[in-house]
Amino acid sequence: MNIVLRAFLYFILSLNIFAQTGFPALTLKADTLIRTALRDSSGYKLLGELCKIGPRLSGSDNSVKAAEFCRDAMIRLGYDSAWLQPVMVPRWVRGNQETAVLYSSKKKIKQLSVASLGGSVGTSGKLSAKVIEVGSYDELKARASEAAGKIVFYNVKFDQGVENSFQGYGKTAGYRVTGGIEAAKYGAKGFILRSITTRNDNTPHTGITYYNDTIPKIPGLAIGIQDADYLSVRLKTDKNISLTLEMNCFNGQDAPSFNVIGEMRGIEFPDEILTVSGHLDSWDKGDGSHDDGAGCVQSIEIPELLNRTGYHPKRTVRCVLFMNEENGSRGADGYAKYILNDGKKHLLAIESDRGAFTPRGFTVERDTVLIQKLQKYLPLFRKAGIEWIEKGGSGADISHLKNVNALMGYVPDSQRYFDYHHSANDVFSEVNQREFELGTAAMALMVMICDSEDLIK
Amino acid sequence: MNIVLRAFLYFILSLNIFAQTGFPALTLKADTLIRTALRDSSGYKLLGELCKIGPRLSGSDNSVKAAEFCRDAMIRLGYDSAWLQPVMVPRWVRGNQETAVLYSSKKKIKQLSVASLGGSVGTSGKLSAKVIEVGSYDELKARASEAAGKIVFYNVKFDQGVENSFQGYGKTAGYRVTGGIEAAKYGAKGFILRSITTRNDNTPHTGITYYNDTIPKIPGLAIGIQDADYLSVRLKTDKNISLTLEMNCFNGQDAPSFNVIGEMRGIEFPDEILTVSGHLDSWDKGDGSHDDGAGCVQSIEIPELLNRTGYHPKRTVRCVLFMNEENGSRGADGYAKYILNDGKKHLLAIESDRGAFTPRGFTVERDTVLIQKLQKYLPLFRKAGIEWIEKGGSGADISHLKNVNALMGYVPDSQRYFDYHHSANDVFSEVNQREFELGTAAMALMVMICDSEDLIK
Repeated sequence: MNIVLRAFLYFILSLNIFAQTGFPALTLKADTLIRTALRDSSGYKLLGELCKIGPRLSGSDNSVKAAEFCRDAMIRLGYDSAWLQPVMVPRWVRGNQETAVLYSSKKKIKQLSVASLGGSVGTSGKLSAKVIEVGSYDELKARASEAAGKIVFYNVKFDQGVENSFQGYGKTAGYRVTGGIEAAKYGAKGFILRSITTRNDNTPHTGITYYNDTIPKIPGLAIGIQDADYLSVRLKTDKNISLTLEMNCFNGQDAPSFNVIGEMRGIEFPDEILTVSGHLDSWDKGDGSHDDGAGCVQSIEIPELLNRTGYHPKRTVRCVLFMNEENGSRGADGYAKYILNDGKKHLLAIESDRGAFTPRGFTVERDTVLIQKLQKYLPLFRKAGIEWIEKGGSGADISHLKNVNALMGYVPDSQRYFDYHHSANDVFSEVNQREFELGTAAMALMVMICDSEDLIK
Repeated sequence: MNIVLRAFLYFILSLNIFAQTGFPALTLKADTLIRTALRDSSGYKLLGELCKIGPRLSGSDNSVKAAEFCRDAMIRLGYDSAWLQPVMVPRWVRGNQETAVLYSSKKKIKQLSVASLGGSVGTSGKLSAKVIEVGSYDELKARASEAAGKIVFYNVKFDQGVENSFQGYGKTAGYRVTGGIEAAKYGAKGFILRSITTRNDNTPHTGITYYNDTIPKIPGLAIGIQDADYLSVRLKTDKNISLTLEMNCFNGQDAPSFNVIGEMRGIEFPDEILTVSGHLDSWDKGDGSHDDGAGCVQSIEIPELLNRTGYHPKRTVRCVLFMNEENGSRGADGYAKYILNDGKKHLLAIESDRGAFTPRGFTVERDTVLIQKLQKYLPLFRKAGIEWIEKGGSGADISHLKNVNALMGYVPDSQRYFDYHHSANDVFSEVNQREFELGTAAMALMVMICDSEDLIK
């Protein structure tokens, strides 16, 4: 028996679950909420169903199906109301052709693992050119005369060197977003980008690229990082390397689409709104489970979970699923206008858009006094894995909302997010049930505490 | 460009990396250490090599090969010394037969997904019996008269309801460890156990089961949880259900094996020892990457990482890889005796044995004054994902060490640990590089801070 006792000793002694929180009534409700989320996993199952629809690119049929699916789920869960808010969105179409073939003189060497960047123009047939590799915009500028007529290869490695992987992303994402503009300034015919990823595989990671109207629009592709390394070595040893791109992606006409909005009315202050949110559109290589099916389904589950576990909010809890975060933010803009003069009091909006990973903290924008008020509830938040609440940016969608008093970002652990982000790796089987549900519980807890303790005026 | 600026704003604002720590010199060293671990990933590669050897069951050839591999790795990394410490260990052999076939009367219905429990006796041919399902020892006791001549089926679900999954494990592990003793008390011929897991798949999870010498030794098997659910339903609807077990596992003679010990000598107080550790043996269904290849390789990397990144410890940093944590703790006992009167001052031992997941905290046993001293370094620890340092049990091996002043457990996130634990799911491809290396960095940082600031006397 000693091993059992020992096991108990070590496991239980190192838990914090018996810590006093100082809020006995709230603590009971929090425990029930967390326990129910983790045990029932009803949100996890709903996420599986949503993701079966397939990727939800803005303007695609799938994205509209997904909006209807989510509205129907809200109704099924007993929301007091759930509706689709029309918004027009950009419609970029990937097409069925996206190849990059490497040649040495006229000999074909390798077909690269590629994905057209979202928003990119196509190549109108084949585009063949020599390649110039650069490690920064500074280098591109310094070698501007070499770029004319070539394909610019941005081979910028993801900086893995700090705990928060979003910092590494922040350092490289700019090359994807404006790489076409910068390369075209110097006469380049196209550009390719080392995929922005933390995972050592050869999966290409797409994402938005932008143009402006004063500079020629050149096509852009992401390539797998193993192929990027290969290409870089070949370029150093072979002067006759050229690349042939073929892409038939295009930007179509704006298409009708929808935000999804639903709410459970507050029993005391129904015109005071606490919002939970994610974005429903996704890129099209995986099924958008982490980015951001997870945030959507967590948000859908929260109002119902609170009621099911015995907390009946005084205020209205609203779930908003924004369309078109990835390439235009039209959903956020449309919703921002919609609430601007609606006579409601918008106290709080939380966005979950960093994947379905284990909870770490919340960032708070605008109402920073709220941070101090929330700090004393940390013993309670820790039960859902939340360790800190700090000043910081909230979310790409809710930051558009001018008349919400407090904006918050739900921050899960970031180690694995960019393994999946914008790629075929982002699929439902890569979502861990407990991590996902703990995130739901953390956000629900935030809503419950803000509502119950009247923390936001 | 606005989207780029916005992206930067949201990503960077929500980071804590620019927070002042109050320890500028240490902070620089910590940054270098974390950056190097995450960028180089040399430990991750070493873990891949170790796990290629295969599972490392105590007493197996593989476990000895692994010990030699680790000693050689220490030498290659420039340790001042590295050696094998002989210990005799139990040698349980799984054999090539482990089946459980479900019958209704004489009709075969289903072959279950099973794994013999470690330490179990075999069945000596076929063992056929009716099945009694129980949900607790209390139920077993209440229905004692029904158990005679049957196979007891412990169908106890993992309690998923709290953040720390070790709590759920703690509630059910006892049925695996002493289930044979309790069932045999009432004349049962064998027992099967619902696998102790957080993942909804049908993989069986093994682990140690114990006997005592006063009660007959009956064979025990873990079954996949989907098969456990199936069996439970069938038992309720069919009175003619029986089970036939066939297992040729056995407990052999004790076998010679080794702990692996290596150190880099301190430049100021070489007789003061700071120990980092894991256990080298594993169960035999996966390759033991999380349990506990990860803890071993993190420990191997730490002394060298500190030196490589410019921190040269005043004290000796010793790496100890314990053999036989899973089924006997002979390695821990042997090492405990070895250091008892060695004339050294053993200040600290840290054990990593909770998987290669993202860091969360440290538990401290014995020297609880140390906790307060360490709290003020939390801004520094946060750079490696460590949010808390608290009183708690340390590790199953190091808890045997009587003359170490402070014992610590490295505590990574627990959401996924029991998806892998003791099963074929525990393989290298399920280790995330960043999460693993951040754990290495967190432990190295702990050693650096304790050493540099002379926190332990």
